[in-house]
Amino acid sequence: MPASPRTMPAPPPSFGDVRAATEALCTPLEIEDYSAQSMADASPTKWHLAHTSWFFEEFVLRQATPAWRFLFNSYYEAVGPRHERPQRGLLTRPTVAEVMAYRHSITARMEALLASGRLSALELKIVTLGLHHEQQHQELILTDLLHLFSCNPLLPVYRETPPAGPRPSTPLTFQAFPGGVVEIGHTGESFCFDNELPRHRVYLQPFRLASRSVSNGEFREFIRAGGYTQPAHWLSDGWNTVQHEGWHRPLYWRESLQEAFTLAGVRELDEHAPVAHLSFYEADAFARWAGARLPTEFEWETARPPGGEVWEWTSSAYAPYPGFRPAGGALGEYNGKFMANQFVLRGGSAFTPAGHIRPTYRNFFYPAARWQVSGLRLAGDQA
Amino acid sequence: MPASPRTMPAPPPSFGDVRAATEALCTPLEIEDYSAQSMADASPTKWHLAHTSWFFEEFVLRQATPAWRFLFNSYYEAVGPRHERPQRGLLTRPTVAEVMAYRHSITARMEALLASGRLSALELKIVTLGLHHEQQHQELILTDLLHLFSCNPLLPVYRETPPAGPRPSTPLTFQAFPGGVVEIGHTGESFCFDNELPRHRVYLQPFRLASRSVSNGEFREFIRAGGYTQPAHWLSDGWNTVQHEGWHRPLYWRESLQEAFTLAGVRELDEHAPVAHLSFYEADAFARWAGARLPTEFEWETARPPGGEVWEWTSSAYAPYPGFRPAGGALGEYNGKFMANQFVLRGGSAFTPAGHIRPTYRNFFYPAARWQVSGLRLAGDQA
Amino acid sequence: MPASPRTMPAPPPSFGDVRAATEALCTPLEIEDYSAQSMADASPTKWHLAHTSWFFEEFVLRQATPAWRFLFNSYYEAVGPRHERPQRGLLTRPTVAEVMAYRHSITARMEALLASGRLSALELKIVTLGLHHEQQHQELILTDLLHLFSCNPLLPVYRETPPAGPRPSTPLTFQAFPGGVVEIGHTGESFCFDNELPRHRVYLQPFRLASRSVSNGEFREFIRAGGYTQPAHWLSDGWNTVQHEGWHRPLYWRESLQEAFTLAGVRELDEHAPVAHLSFYEADAFARWAGARLPTEFEWETARPPGGEVWEWTSSAYAPYPGFRPAGGALGEYNGKFMANQFVLRGGSAFTPAGHIRPTYRNFFYPAARWQVSGLRLAGDQA
Amino acid sequence: MPASPRTMPAPPPSFGDVRAATEALCTPLEIEDYSAQSMADASPTKWHLAHTSWFFEEFVLRQATPAWRFLFNSYYEAVGPRHERPQRGLLTRPTVAEVMAYRHSITARMEALLASGRLSALELKIVTLGLHHEQQHQELILTDLLHLFSCNPLLPVYRETPPAGPRPSTPLTFQAFPGGVVEIGHTGESFCFDNELPRHRVYLQPFRLASRSVSNGEFREFIRAGGYTQPAHWLSDGWNTVQHEGWHRPLYWRESLQEAFTLAGVRELDEHAPVAHLSFYEADAFARWAGARLPTEFEWETARPPGGEVWEWTSSAYAPYPGFRPAGGALGEYNGKFMANQFVLRGGSAFTPAGHIRPTYRNFFYPAARWQVSGLRLAGDQA
Repeated sequence: MPASPRTMPAPPPSFGDVRAATEALCTPLEIEDYSAQSMADASPTKWHLAHTSWFFEEFVLRQATPAWRFLFNSYYEAVGPRHERPQRGLLTRPTVAEVMAYRHSITARMEALLASGRLSALELKIVTLGLHHEQQHQELILTDLLHLFSCNPLLPVYRETPPAGPRPSTPLTFQAFPGGVVEIGHTGESFCFDNELPRHRVYLQPFRLASRSVSNGEFREFIRAGGYTQPAHWLSDGWNTVQHEGWHRPLYWRESLQEAFTLAGVRELDEHAPVAHLSFYEADAFARWAGARLPTEFEWETARPPGGEVWEWTSSAYAPYPGFRPAGGALGEYNGKFMANQFVLRGGSAFTPAGHIRPTYRNFFYPAARWQVSGLRLAGDQA
Repeated sequence: MPASPRTMPAPPPSFGDVRAATEALCTPLEIEDYSAQSMADASPTKWHLAHTSWFFEEFVLRQATPAWRFLFNSYYEAVGPRHERPQRGLLTRPTVAEVMAYRHSITARMEALLASGRLSALELKIVTLGLHHEQQHQELILTDLLHLFSCNPLLPVYRETPPAGPRPSTPLTFQAFPGGVVEIGHTGESFCFDNELPRHRVYLQPFRLASRSVSNGEFREFIRAGGYTQPAHWLSDGWNTVQHEGWHRPLYWRESLQEAFTLAGVRELDEHAPVAHLSFYEADAFARWAGARLPTEFEWETARPPGGEVWEWTSSAYAPYPGFRPAGGALGEYNGKFMANQFVLRGGSAFTPAGHIRPTYRNFFYPAARWQVSGLRLAGDQA
Repeated sequence: MPASPRTMPAPPPSFGDVRAATEALCTPLEIEDYSAQSMADASPTKWHLAHTSWFFEEFVLRQATPAWRFLFNSYYEAVGPRHERPQRGLLTRPTVAEVMAYRHSITARMEALLASGRLSALELKIVTLGLHHEQQHQELILTDLLHLFSCNPLLPVYRETPPAGPRPSTPLTFQAFPGGVVEIGHTGESFCFDNELPRHRVYLQPFRLASRSVSNGEFREFIRAGGYTQPAHWLSDGWNTVQHEGWHRPLYWRESLQEAFTLAGVRELDEHAPVAHLSFYEADAFARWAGARLPTEFEWETARPPGGEVWEWTSSAYAPYPGFRPAGGALGEYNGKFMANQFVLRGGSAFTPAGHIRPTYRNFFYPAARWQVSGLRLAGDQA
Repeated sequence: MPASPRTMPAPPPSFGDVRAATEALCTPLEIEDYSAQSMADASPTKWHLAHTSWFFEEFVLRQATPAWRFLFNSYYEAVGPRHERPQRGLLTRPTVAEVMAYRHSITARMEALLASGRLSALELKIVTLGLHHEQQHQELILTDLLHLFSCNPLLPVYRETPPAGPRPSTPLTFQAFPGGVVEIGHTGESFCFDNELPRHRVYLQPFRLASRSVSNGEFREFIRAGGYTQPAHWLSDGWNTVQHEGWHRPLYWRESLQEAFTLAGVRELDEHAPVAHLSFYEADAFARWAGARLPTEFEWETARPPGGEVWEWTSSAYAPYPGFRPAGGALGEYNGKFMANQFVLRGGSAFTPAGHIRPTYRNFFYPAARWQVSGLRLAGDQA
C-alpha cells in the first residue's frame, strides 16, 4: 500500500543543480552589486546567497555558527534574534568570496550527507523544502537586482538580451465556468508548500475568466483615460497610496509610457506583452475601470490558466486553508505567520523557476508591492 | 406577488427617534468634550452630530452649503474635497450650539419632506440608509468618547452607572456544525447594508464554535502565561505591532490586570464578562495560544450566535460577496471601497443600537484597531 | 547707597491687573475655543490659563495638587513628570469653568499672601517673575489662537477691529554706528529675566542699521522676484525647510499676496506695515536678496530701535551671556536650558505687553517658527 | 610690497601627494567596503573618491560629464540637481575600478594643467581649495568607515595597529587668561577657508581654560554618577535627544564602559586618553556636571591649545565673522550656507591631515553628531 504523499516525499530535485542555478544568476554581477539593499523589502544578492545556505546549515546540518546565524536568519523567531532587515545593505563583510566559500562548504557537506543515505524521511523533506526555498530566492535575486539597478541614474544593464520581436495581437476573450463545489489545493505526491494544503472544497458561483492577462497596451489606455487621477476606480487604501507615493504609471515604466527599465536596460514596451510591476491596488483599479474584477484565487485555480508570464493578482486575501496546520518548530513560521494583510498571486513569471509554476501555487505580497513581476487577468460574473 | 426587498423597502424607522437618540448620547457632556479628537481614527462628537445631518442634506435635501459640505463630508470623493480627517479636532467653530441648530433645522426639513409624501421609493431608501448610518455613528460617538477620556489623566466619567453584580461563571463548550453548502447574506424585506448582499452559497467544512466569547479571566491567563512576549503565538504583522506599540494588555486595562477604564470610570474587571478592546492580532494570538482559531464570518453567520455583548473578530478579510454591486453615485462609496486590508467582525456590543444586531451584519476594522468593543469567540475544526 | 538690582527688586507690578489682563483676552472666546491645540508648539488657551496659575501655586504657595501639577507643568524637569505637550488639546477636562475657578482661588490666595507682608525678598522676586511669565503667556494666547483659527476653513474672527487707515510710506534709511567696545545687558533696578544678565562688554565692528523694519510691500517684491524658488538666497537648512514645508509666502498670507489672515479675519495687507510671521530662514533670505544682512542682537541693543511693531529676528544664536548663572532649583530651567538651536528676536509686537518691550529683552524661537509676530530689520557693514 | 594673502596664494601643496594620500586610505578595503552608506550623514568611500575628483573637473577643468556631475555633486545648488544624499549607498556602479580610473584621469589632466603654467591666480586658488577640500574628505573617509564597520555585528577591523601603551596620568589644571579685546581669524599668507576670515576684534571676559581635554576616565565618572539619567545636566534639546536616541554612553563605547570599537577593532579604553565621539549635547552636559562650561571658539583660539587629539566642541554657534563675504558662484556655497544650527569645533584629531590643524580652523557639525572624533575641553569664568 503506498504511503501518503506527506510521509514519503518524491526524491528531492538535484541538490547540485539548484545550488548552481543560484550562483549562475550572479555571473553578470560586479562585486559592488552583491551588497547593496535598495529598500527594506529587498535584500542584497549576497544576503540571498548566504541565507539559502544558512537554511540548510540550520535545519539539516544543525551546526550554524552564531554570528552568521544572526546575520542570515530571515524571519524565524524560534531560531533567535536577527540582524535588522533594513540594515542588510551595511554588511560589507563577509565578502562575496567568503560567502561563496561558505556556500560551497555547505553544498559539499550537504552532498556528502545526501550521498550517505543517513537522512531520515523528515530530513529529506526538509532538504526538498530548502531547495524550493532557494528557488524562491532565485526569483527574488532578480527582482531585487532590478529594483536596485532602477535606483541608479546610470541605469545599469544586468544582462544584454536581444530584443524579442513584437508579439502578435491576441484578442481578449472570456471563458465561462459553471462554478459549484470544486476541490482546491494540492494533490498527488509531488512537492508543495504547506499553504497549498489541505485540499478542500469551495463553492464557486458561475464566473468568467479572461483568456490572457492584461497587456501593456491595454494598461496604457487606462493611464491615458485618467486612471491614476480618478478616485472612483480605486479602493480607499489604494487611492491614498497613489497620492502618497505619487504613482502615475507602473513601476519601471518611463514617463513616455513607451519604454520601461528592465534587466536588459531601458527597452521599448511591447504593447501586446503582459503588463507587469503593478501593485494589487493598480490591478484592482484597472479591473474596475474595465468593468470587470479580479478573479478569486479559487476561480483562478479552477480555470487552470497557464502561468509563466506574470504573477497575477487575485482578489483573495492570503489566508489559511480550512484545516491548515503549520509544521512544528521554526519551520512552522515558513508561511503561516504571514497570513494577514497580503493578497494571493497566481501564475508565475519569466523570473520564476519552472518547478514553481503549478495551478495550486500561492504567492503572496502586500497590496502596495510593485517590484515583483505582477500583473492581472480580468474576471467577471456570469450574466 | 410581493415585490423584491430591494425595490420596495420597509418603512423607515422613526426619523425623529433616531435623531433624538443621537442627541441623548450628548446629555452627559460638557461643551469642551464635543470638539476634541484623540486620534486620526476617531472623530469629535460635534463632528458626528454634524456629519450625520450633512448626510441627509447632501443626499436627500440636496442643498448642502459649501463650507459645511467641506467640513462634514467624511470620505465621499464624488462629493468633492474634504477637510483633512486628522484636523477635525481643530474645528472649534461652528460651536456646539450652531451644530445643534443645524441638526434641528435638518430634522425639521426632513420631517416636513417625509410628511409630504413627495419622496420617491429611491429617496425613501436613502432616508432609511441615512438612519442606519446615523446609528452607526451613535456607536462611534461612544467609542470615540471612551478613547478621548482615556487620554486624560483625570480619567473623566462619562456617566455613572451602578456596577453590575458579578456574572456567574459559564463553562465554555463547543458546538459542532456539519458544514456543507450554506446560504450566506441577508434575506427578506428588512433593511440591510449593500455589503450583506447578494445572498449566495458558501461551502463550509465541518467546524466547532464556542458557546460564548472569551472572558476577561481567560484573557488574563493568556497574559500571565507570557502571551504578549512570545512571538510564536502571533502573526508576523501582529508581533511587529505588539513591539512597535508596546502592547502588554487590552486597551483600557490597567496595569494591575484587575481594572479597566470604562465610560463609568475605572471599574473592576468582571472575570466572567467578555474581554473587549482587542485588536484582531490579539484575538488571533489568543486563539492560537488556546489551541483554537477564529471562526470565519461564514461559520459565524451559519451558527447564528447571539450578538450584543462584544463585536467578535473573525478570520475573514473584508471582501465583496460574489456579485456585489455598489450603488451608483457617491453612495456607492459607502462600503465597497473599504474592502481591502480590514477584517470582519460579527455580533455587536452593548454600545450598538439594537437594529444593528443581526446575523448577517458585517462590521469591519483594520487589524490593529482596538478602540472598538471588540473581542473574540473560539472556533475549531471538527476532529 | 542703593542695593543691587538683584537683591532688592522693584515692587511687583499689580498682581490683580496682570491676572485680569489675561482673562480679558478670553472675552471673545466661545467655550469650544479654549481647549484645542493646533500644533505641538502651541497650547490651548485653557492650558495657558491654568499653567500661569500653577506657576504661583508651585513656586510661591507650594501646595500644588498632584494631578494638576502633572497637567500644567510646562517643562520643569525638577518638578516631576508632565503631561505630554502634544496632548494638551485632549484635556477637555478640567472644564473652562473649573480652570477659571482655579485661577480665581490662586489669585485670592496670592493676594492675601501679598497683603500679609509675610513674603521674603526672594519670594517677592518669584512673584514678580511669575507676573512677567504670565505676560509672556498673554502674547502666546494670542499667537496660538491666531494659529488655531487659521486652521479652520471658516476663518473665525477673534475680535472685530476697525481697519486702520493705510500707513504713509516711510523711506528706508540706514544709520551708521561706530562700533567698538559696548556694554550689553540689563542695568538698573527694574525687573529683567536672567538671560539679560550679566551686563558685559562686547566688541562691535562699525555697522549700519535700517531706520525701520521691512514692510509687506518690500517682502512682496522678494516673492515676486522668485525669492522662494532660488536656493542661492537661502541657508542650506532654510532651503530644505522651504521645500519640505512647501512655503511660498509668509504664514497667514493668502495666495493673492494682497491679504492675510489676522485676529480680525482676512484683512488687506498694508504695504507699508511691517511684514510679520516670517521664520528666521525667510528673514535671512530676504536680507541676503536685499544685499544686506540681519543685525546681531548686540548691534540691535546698541542701536536701541523702538520696539512694539514686530519681533525682529537677529543673526545671533541664543546663548548665555558670559558669566550667566541660572537660578537654583526648578526656576533655573526658566531660560538656560533652551540656549541651543534657537535664535534671538528683539523688539516686541502689538501682541506684547508693554513691560516686555525694552532694549535688553531677548526673545527666542527655533529658526523655522513662523507663528509669532516675527519680522526683520536690515543691517549691514560699514563701507 | 607684498600682495595681500587673498590675491596671491601660496603655491598649492603637492597635488600628487594629496591625491595619493586619499587612495592610500583605501588600501585595507575590500571592494565591498567602498559602496555602503551607513546613514544619511555619512558617504561611501567610493563616493568620496569620486566627489573629490569631480570637484577639480567641475571647478577647474570645467568639463564634467552630466551623469557623473549629477552623482558626485555634493551640495552645490548652483551646479544643478543632484543625486539624493541618502541614496549614495545604492550606486553599485560606477565600480571601484571605474572610479579609480576616473580619479587617475583627473589627476593626470590636472597635473598636466599645473605643469603648463596656464592657470590664473584665481584658478590656482581653486586648486588649492580643492586640495584642502580633499583633505577634509580624507578625514570623513575614516569617520564614515568607522561608522559603517560599527554597524556590522562582525565588527570588522580596518587596520590592525599595535596597542599604544597606557598613557600616563596628566593632572587637569586651568590656565587663566585676561580677556579684553583680541584679534580673531586667520592672518598671514598661508591658505585658510573663507570662514576663518575676516580677521576681526572680539571682546573677551577673563576666562580659564583646561590644560588638556577631558579623558575617558573622567567621562566614565560622569556616566557612573548617573549623568545620562539626570535632566538637570542637559540642555532641553539634548535631553530630548538622549531619551529619543537611547544614549547611555559615547558612540562606540561598549556596554562595559571599558572598551570601544575603533578602526583597529574593539580596544580597551585608555583612561587617560581623550574621550571621543561625543555629541555637543554630551560635551555640554559633562561640563555642567563638572561645574565648568565649554569654551567659546574665541577663547579657544586666543588660548591656542595644541590640536591633533580630538576635535573639541565649543559653545559657539557656527556663524559668519563680521564682514564675511562668500565667494561668487557655486564655490560661495562651500561654507556660508551652513552657518545656522551647527556648533564650532576646534583642534583636530588623529584622523585629521596635518595641514588642517591650526588655531583659526573652524570645524562645524550639528549638535547631535557623534561620529566625528569629537570631545571637549573645560573652561570657566575667572573668579
